[in-house]
Amino acid sequence: MKLFEFEAFANPRRVRVFAAELGIELEREQVDVLAGEHLQFEHLQRNPYGAVPTLELDDGRTISESAVICRYLADLNAEGQHSDLLGNTTTERALIDMWDRRVEHGLLGAVASFFHHGTEGLATDKYRNSDWGQHNKETIAAEMHRLDQQLQEHKYLAGETFSIADITALCAVDFAALLGMPIADDHVALQGWYASVNTRDSVRA
Amino acid sequence: MKLFEFEAFANPRRVRVFAAELGIELEREQVDVLAGEHLQFEHLQRNPYGAVPTLELDDGRTISESAVICRYLADLNAEGQHSDLLGNTTTERALIDMWDRRVEHGLLGAVASFFHHGTEGLATDKYRNSDWGQHNKETIAAEMHRLDQQLQEHKYLAGETFSIADITALCAVDFAALLGMPIADDHVALQGWYASVNTRDSVRA
Repeated sequence: MKLFEFEAFANPRRVRVFAAELGIELEREQVDVLAGEHLQFEHLQRNPYGAVPTLELDDGRTISESAVICRYLADLNAEGQHSDLLGNTTTERALIDMWDRRVEHGLLGAVASFFHHGTEGLATDKYRNSDWGQHNKETIAAEMHRLDQQLQEHKYLAGETFSIADITALCAVDFAALLGMPIADDHVALQGWYASVNTRDSVRA
Repeated sequence: MKLFEFEAFANPRRVRVFAAELGIELEREQVDVLAGEHLQFEHLQRNPYGAVPTLELDDGRTISESAVICRYLADLNAEGQHSDLLGNTTTERALIDMWDRRVEHGLLGAVASFFHHGTEGLATDKYRNSDWGQHNKETIAAEMHRLDQQLQEHKYLAGETFSIADITALCAVDFAALLGMPIADDHVALQGWYASVNTRDSVRA
């Protein structure tokens, strides 16, 4: 099993932090996205969509989509002692998954769109729409505000336990900060959550 | 349990078709998105993100995100006789989930962006970027081409059995056709798959 990834990006980091929480060490290989390696034959053979992260199984099959890889790793983790990350009951699983996707489609999606359209982005992206990119800055602010509201009422995004939704949010927040959009000072709950999540060993994965 | 939805849209339809495949009948209530009801207090109390579909549980909690609602319904379905839709092994589940998300982030995402930016869209969407909208037509064509390639080698999107990924693709393809972008004639495999999937009773849900 090997993870093809690009260390600097938010999505591969989601998988690294999740694996670290599970205590799983992954063999990793870098695909240099800035140099366009994700669109070269070798990686497209692994993943016709050119995405990182991509997990290559021992039988040669490959799995992509960060949340899917995380769920796969949790499924493999026979000890099952970390299912808090995904939820222990039907309803818990749904609520955690819901928040993970809200963050993914909301904040992380807007950060990715800002990166691709509102900054230099990747040389391999042929189409760039600066106005659309700038609009995503507003969306980033609005999405951070939503997370702050949720965290005013709950310790973690999906409730009282740390979950995959917090991992996705952490990676999105850090990538936003890297692009010049840190958490606003008046988002006190989000700031407090960020400080707390950042004390976990896994975030250094 | 009640599904708040807007019948004309692709995402609510994903849940309806999935539930029909499971043999689950859902109580449904329409949220008139064209009239902006999704952004009114009543619906925002159910879902602060204003999204449809939203499933209200009997205890008053709500679950959103179409794929999450589908997984929740399958989890509830004690008989477990329809797990083909989500996969029966760890690897099958991952591959089906991967294809579902590829379709959701790829074709369905592009169709939604075209709808919101390249057409009249919703009166409630304040920001509209026509150039970005039109660019999504290229993405729609490219994503349909990817699906056609996959279907040249497999009967269904995630392999040899009908799955949630096919439901998502069907809803995306039909919504694209509604917006004037039917499957191209030279996508013979995608056309054949579409004809086959359309014979299922559930697609009339």
